[in-house]
Amino acid sequence: MMVYTPFIRSFSILVLFLAFLQSAYTQDDAHAFYIKKIYDHTLTKAQIYDRLYHLSENIGGRLTGSANAETAVDWTYNELKALGVDSVWKQEVMVPHWVRRSEATVSISIDGGKSIPLKATSLGNSVGTGGVEWQGEVIEVFGLDTLELLGEEAIKDKIVFFNRPLDPTQIHTGRAYGGAVDQRSRGPAMAARFGAKAVLVRSMTTLLDDVPHTGVTVYDEDGRKIPGIAISTNDAELLSSFIAQGKYPTATITADCGMEEDKLSHNVIAEIRGTEFPDEIILVGGHLDSWDLAGGAHDDGAGCMHSIQVFENLLALGYKPKRTLRCVMFMNEENGLAGGNAYANESNANGEFHLAAIESDLGGFTPRGFGCSADAEVFKPYLANFQSFEKFLDPYDLHLKSGGGGADIGPLKSQGGLLIGLRPDPQRYFDLHHTKNDHIGMVNKRELELGAAAMTSLVYLIDQIGL
Amino acid sequence: MMVYTPFIRSFSILVLFLAFLQSAYTQDDAHAFYIKKIYDHTLTKAQIYDRLYHLSENIGGRLTGSANAETAVDWTYNELKALGVDSVWKQEVMVPHWVRRSEATVSISIDGGKSIPLKATSLGNSVGTGGVEWQGEVIEVFGLDTLELLGEEAIKDKIVFFNRPLDPTQIHTGRAYGGAVDQRSRGPAMAARFGAKAVLVRSMTTLLDDVPHTGVTVYDEDGRKIPGIAISTNDAELLSSFIAQGKYPTATITADCGMEEDKLSHNVIAEIRGTEFPDEIILVGGHLDSWDLAGGAHDDGAGCMHSIQVFENLLALGYKPKRTLRCVMFMNEENGLAGGNAYANESNANGEFHLAAIESDLGGFTPRGFGCSADAEVFKPYLANFQSFEKFLDPYDLHLKSGGGGADIGPLKSQGGLLIGLRPDPQRYFDLHHTKNDHIGMVNKRELELGAAAMTSLVYLIDQIGL
Repeated sequence: MMVYTPFIRSFSILVLFLAFLQSAYTQDDAHAFYIKKIYDHTLTKAQIYDRLYHLSENIGGRLTGSANAETAVDWTYNELKALGVDSVWKQEVMVPHWVRRSEATVSISIDGGKSIPLKATSLGNSVGTGGVEWQGEVIEVFGLDTLELLGEEAIKDKIVFFNRPLDPTQIHTGRAYGGAVDQRSRGPAMAARFGAKAVLVRSMTTLLDDVPHTGVTVYDEDGRKIPGIAISTNDAELLSSFIAQGKYPTATITADCGMEEDKLSHNVIAEIRGTEFPDEIILVGGHLDSWDLAGGAHDDGAGCMHSIQVFENLLALGYKPKRTLRCVMFMNEENGLAGGNAYANESNANGEFHLAAIESDLGGFTPRGFGCSADAEVFKPYLANFQSFEKFLDPYDLHLKSGGGGADIGPLKSQGGLLIGLRPDPQRYFDLHHTKNDHIGMVNKRELELGAAAMTSLVYLIDQIGL
Repeated sequence: MMVYTPFIRSFSILVLFLAFLQSAYTQDDAHAFYIKKIYDHTLTKAQIYDRLYHLSENIGGRLTGSANAETAVDWTYNELKALGVDSVWKQEVMVPHWVRRSEATVSISIDGGKSIPLKATSLGNSVGTGGVEWQGEVIEVFGLDTLELLGEEAIKDKIVFFNRPLDPTQIHTGRAYGGAVDQRSRGPAMAARFGAKAVLVRSMTTLLDDVPHTGVTVYDEDGRKIPGIAISTNDAELLSSFIAQGKYPTATITADCGMEEDKLSHNVIAEIRGTEFPDEIILVGGHLDSWDLAGGAHDDGAGCMHSIQVFENLLALGYKPKRTLRCVMFMNEENGLAGGNAYANESNANGEFHLAAIESDLGGFTPRGFGCSADAEVFKPYLANFQSFEKFLDPYDLHLKSGGGGADIGPLKSQGGLLIGLRPDPQRYFDLHHTKNDHIGMVNKRELELGAAAMTSLVYLIDQIGL
């Protein structure tokens, strides 16, 4: 039996190539052509999805200081080495080592009645109860400033319940998150100042469901430390409804978690040396650590694998960059930023200049474009070139916005380069952020690939055109 | 226990209102302000998700001519009536009535060896085998034109297997679909001309999985009709791999489906009469029928519910349109377009003019903007105003592209108005299109709401500014 294969594709490439030779061929055409090559390669040959599967499901959750985190360091080091980059190294970083020995429990009861268990998870960096039960009356507040109004008398020995929801009218869920997350990041520290026993926090999502979201809390350096526990949004609604009915819930909590001794960990850094302007560095990166509740497929396995794929794409296409390209797997974004700080410190000490740093840390969803920011003084000279990239990116439905970057690249700001964040579609990210649901099953292969192609295209444009 | 509610929101509204009164208030500010109101309403009060749940899960699959389709007609009629529109009516439409009596089966064997069952589904409008087994040797082809090259000698009595994959390098999956779907829509008709016994078609998706995709096939009016059956992409790869190894698979198929007598069905139409330009109609719509394999949550429950939400939003906000607004639930997009044709025919007979028709029929994913098209002659006058809308839509990450519209509104083209299609993110749509997976579980509530807010905003702008 004969099989008739299509000649259509090779024929169209030939036609395109002839058109390319005969036309008034411009530099812009060449850039558009190369970006199409990047997309074609990524959408047909990229190993990004398989890599993300391995990282998130085989290695799994990668809390800073954990054995999994070091496994991820070694694995990404080897993957980058195997790509054939000019050099790859591990940068030593001392990191905090917080451990969740067992998951927190929270139950509530009214007037000594039936105990109702809530879906709960300890906040990262939180202290525990030593694993024993603590009880306290629940007081509901909607913001940090309310604590001051209430004062120590009302708060002392209570369990403070922060319940301000994310604002659903924000189009960009990151803004809704940003407008509520102070309750989680600073609630326990602030409530402790007024004598609270512990803190419950409504999970940081617009979604109403039964899944608690962890995430870092930050204590006052010399202040009291009290346990911080997130409860699911459905349970937050339930607890709030009792209080709205004039009932007086008592919460019983346990938490067994806390800080251990700092550990030695690593950033993983790969480099392709520039041929014309080796002192101008273009960085792509994400953070390798993740919370422990799942494999961190979106946060931030996707960003790390995006960044490795940028290198894989350019090497596979035989691209020789004018500028020096760095790919960085940052350690400890989630609960300390030790990796981002160590990277910038050493870079500054070496007198380096990062012309542009691009972080992907908002998930592996369809890319909508890039957000960028920099010191106001240095921003303007870059803007014209950067905006000129839009004509190459628009066919891929990518749009440039001001504002954005990433936590890990933030410390590079003082070098005066452009800080850029990939903007994936933001609607689903906080549905699964810092939960057990942040696994590979929530990642769409094409959407993940498109993010890598977008980042590669931007690196290409910055490298070719400069800023 | 006291509860401290936040005053932040009402305070910000007050500040905004004062700023609004005092500032050099422009018409543009007023439009931006109203669009924000539309989004706020939709993201906090819309019933769109609950409606889509009811339509797709309680009513379920709504194949044209089925009892479910008429239930959906009655339900949407009542929903629109309950909104308090000026008028709502059912437009009679004679529709084809195809039935899948039982699902197709396909198995293959090599040289009389073990029979391997494939995941299969009959194509819409296809004839069956009368429920009995048919056998035939499989011949693999990659396009309709190959049939002519092979000729009747090679094809007669064979089971023709169309296996050209969707092109994964297309960024917009609709283009990948459009580049492959001729195999499904015309494969059986064309293969029948050369004496084929039946047709197997690779499912129309870029995804490799085990889920077969149905969809319409169109026979030659007076030609032979042979069964058309889709198989999953994984099974298409398997079958192809046998052939690539030089093996000669025999397929055994059964299919029990076919056309019954035409039936009376309905489009559902609601109207809010314009106060200034009642003869200029702005239409929003989707198609109410769906395939029978699932509840048609994305295709096109989402588009119908988007359209109803546009009306709910504007009525809830007390908006009085200058132009006449129509909301149309079209019947029979999937296998005949009887509803779209009937609507345009009656509209033309009544001398109506649709200034703009906006269809949502690409799913309930995050909206990326709108695509528009019209007769080249009439397009230009509209373009300047239409492009001026972009500044109001850009804050919502919506972008206007040329090209787009929708099947149901296509017949309105001769009226010379602008045809517009909502552009949701396209990456996941063809993963579940025409399959058992097109259910409410695949719909994200916020993404669905954002689509309705986008459509409402565009209707508002066209109504206010004109074209």
